[in-house]
Amino acid sequence: MLITLTTDFGLQDPYAGIMKGVIAGINPKAAVVDLTHGIPAQEIWPGALTLRHSIRYFPRGTIHVAVVDPGVGSARRPLLIECDGNYLIGPDNGLLSLAVGRQATLRIVHLSNSAYHLQPTGTTFHGRDIFAPVSAHLSLGVPLDAFGARAEDFVRLPFPEVVARGNEIIGEIIYADKFGNLFTNIAEHDLTGRPGGRYEIVLGKNRISGVAPNYAAARACDFVAVINSWGLLEIAVNRGSAQERSGAMIGDKVQLLGPS
Amino acid sequence: MLITLTTDFGLQDPYAGIMKGVIAGINPKAAVVDLTHGIPAQEIWPGALTLRHSIRYFPRGTIHVAVVDPGVGSARRPLLIECDGNYLIGPDNGLLSLAVGRQATLRIVHLSNSAYHLQPTGTTFHGRDIFAPVSAHLSLGVPLDAFGARAEDFVRLPFPEVVARGNEIIGEIIYADKFGNLFTNIAEHDLTGRPGGRYEIVLGKNRISGVAPNYAAARACDFVAVINSWGLLEIAVNRGSAQERSGAMIGDKVQLLGPS
Amino acid sequence: MLITLTTDFGLQDPYAGIMKGVIAGINPKAAVVDLTHGIPAQEIWPGALTLRHSIRYFPRGTIHVAVVDPGVGSARRPLLIECDGNYLIGPDNGLLSLAVGRQATLRIVHLSNSAYHLQPTGTTFHGRDIFAPVSAHLSLGVPLDAFGARAEDFVRLPFPEVVARGNEIIGEIIYADKFGNLFTNIAEHDLTGRPGGRYEIVLGKNRISGVAPNYAAARACDFVAVINSWGLLEIAVNRGSAQERSGAMIGDKVQLLGPS
Repeated sequence: MLITLTTDFGLQDPYAGIMKGVIAGINPKAAVVDLTHGIPAQEIWPGALTLRHSIRYFPRGTIHVAVVDPGVGSARRPLLIECDGNYLIGPDNGLLSLAVGRQATLRIVHLSNSAYHLQPTGTTFHGRDIFAPVSAHLSLGVPLDAFGARAEDFVRLPFPEVVARGNEIIGEIIYADKFGNLFTNIAEHDLTGRPGGRYEIVLGKNRISGVAPNYAAARACDFVAVINSWGLLEIAVNRGSAQERSGAMIGDKVQLLGPS
Repeated sequence: MLITLTTDFGLQDPYAGIMKGVIAGINPKAAVVDLTHGIPAQEIWPGALTLRHSIRYFPRGTIHVAVVDPGVGSARRPLLIECDGNYLIGPDNGLLSLAVGRQATLRIVHLSNSAYHLQPTGTTFHGRDIFAPVSAHLSLGVPLDAFGARAEDFVRLPFPEVVARGNEIIGEIIYADKFGNLFTNIAEHDLTGRPGGRYEIVLGKNRISGVAPNYAAARACDFVAVINSWGLLEIAVNRGSAQERSGAMIGDKVQLLGPS
Repeated sequence: MLITLTTDFGLQDPYAGIMKGVIAGINPKAAVVDLTHGIPAQEIWPGALTLRHSIRYFPRGTIHVAVVDPGVGSARRPLLIECDGNYLIGPDNGLLSLAVGRQATLRIVHLSNSAYHLQPTGTTFHGRDIFAPVSAHLSLGVPLDAFGARAEDFVRLPFPEVVARGNEIIGEIIYADKFGNLFTNIAEHDLTGRPGGRYEIVLGKNRISGVAPNYAAARACDFVAVINSWGLLEIAVNRGSAQERSGAMIGDKVQLLGPS
């Protein structure tokens, strides 16, 4: 059984390694994969986006543990969500929410049964004390309802809507990766079916003509727009950083002008 | 059998990966967990602290390999220490010492038998040439005494003492994590039993009233003191960095004033 | 079967983790080792060097997947190279080439059979869509020729030559690691056999007397030259960074003056 970890712990401190020690102590056969520990400190949004676009690439039944948890130890609940045969474990602060489809069949459990937590359970590191041991017990086949009481709902982050009017589509930058590629909220299906399929893409003072098949379709150091690996419209610079070149920030508007 | 790695190699270079290749070549079934490769270059103290507070979360019998080794290839000895059923492998420069309890039952071996080292053995990367292969052979059940001669002692780092006098406790900052949380040498048991249980905590010009149950008990951007996941008094900033806000350095004094 | 990953993805984004999910979905028993994800963005040379000096430490038959791929989705071919019983998978842009010996027995396959790729196959992340699934299928025993047509050649990066004339050897800096150690292209065998075995090593304004047995042979903060773990002459600073101290860049000349 596969367990993934997504955290803002970074790799300087032993926090992620300690979680793996706890898991190995409960289920030595569990395989643990780091999705990332590089979520910016206490930023729930990029963690939620990362899960949204990653879990489909893991085998059904994978247990995804996520810890970006500024409210650790306070009233926010620790949760386990079963969603279409996959499992999400983490704090109820929106972090898990973007990976849960609107139509998905869900079972939500409040991790209230401390028999499956590390003892004593601290108030500053639930990744180690609650989420890791629960994931390990779950990987051993402990049934969902053993971990606590059913819950009806959980905190959902809103995903910014794409606005289409006339020959114009308005979206925004929602993520920047380490290459400085700028991800928008505009999905491939927001573009298809529109006449011409050809857009002028406007980000601040920069204009890009059309969506290219790949990065290398642009000259080196030129802006280029592609449909990226998350199925989203992305603004990049071939062999460079669109983030640095444009100075764009998360939340900046992106405008697509169709043929008029 | 589980092997952990704790190094200052970082993740830019392939050094940690190469150690895993050497281990896999000797024992393909060994599971290797990265505790951290982010120890600051050649800084033994944070490496030793990391081991001190991590190994209890791993199953008994785990082999912990640590490499922060500015004296690599010189007269400092390569060591294997068995301590309460766990194993520590690394250079004899203090790195392993804080994980060894004062009352622990120890067996110490100088890794002098080159039959268990990579051949030829270089002088700049004992992680690859000595510590990784020894850990892999140990995980296969090779007995301790095969690896070399028994040693009587090893280099121990002093752990700074907490001073209590009257209604005052004096400690110091010993570690800062990636969130900018400042760890002190003051343990939870240094606080309990004192009248009132309520302290004024002083770090430079900053004063914090009492030890809070969790980070979120403080307002956002306010200082807060908690007992952290290592069982130590920690000075943090809720949703911020205490290190940045205070400018404190490792070694700075922390003063606790009890009710007078 | 062991699969290694070498990329420029860094650890902020989930790209490396997603590749592991794809592999686990095809071969749950495959063990995956990160060689490094810290190759500088889109820099093929350090990626190729890393492979050159790492794969010998992995068991024969290991599958090495490498992704530094600025031309992803363009005409550059995706390749699988069998070389002396090991496997290299990645883009045909030179990245794999330094790990392939001049005299090695090779089988080269153009990964043209999309039956072994993820569907739909995107144009921006062949690590996920082509290289990961091919590596997983290969680890299950799928024969080489199933993956595509044989190819005759591949892009080879030139390795800079060492020039020896009279009592002088001229090389250059080819890599700097995270400690600031400066690796030259001068191998141990370029030095042996020369009278005296003692050189004056010149890098810019800095002069180093002779090759030392280890870093600690120099005083703290002094320059020192050693034969490093890759078998190359390296210029270091004991307990410091030779890169910072010298200001040297990749490509800078290094001169060795033998006894005249």
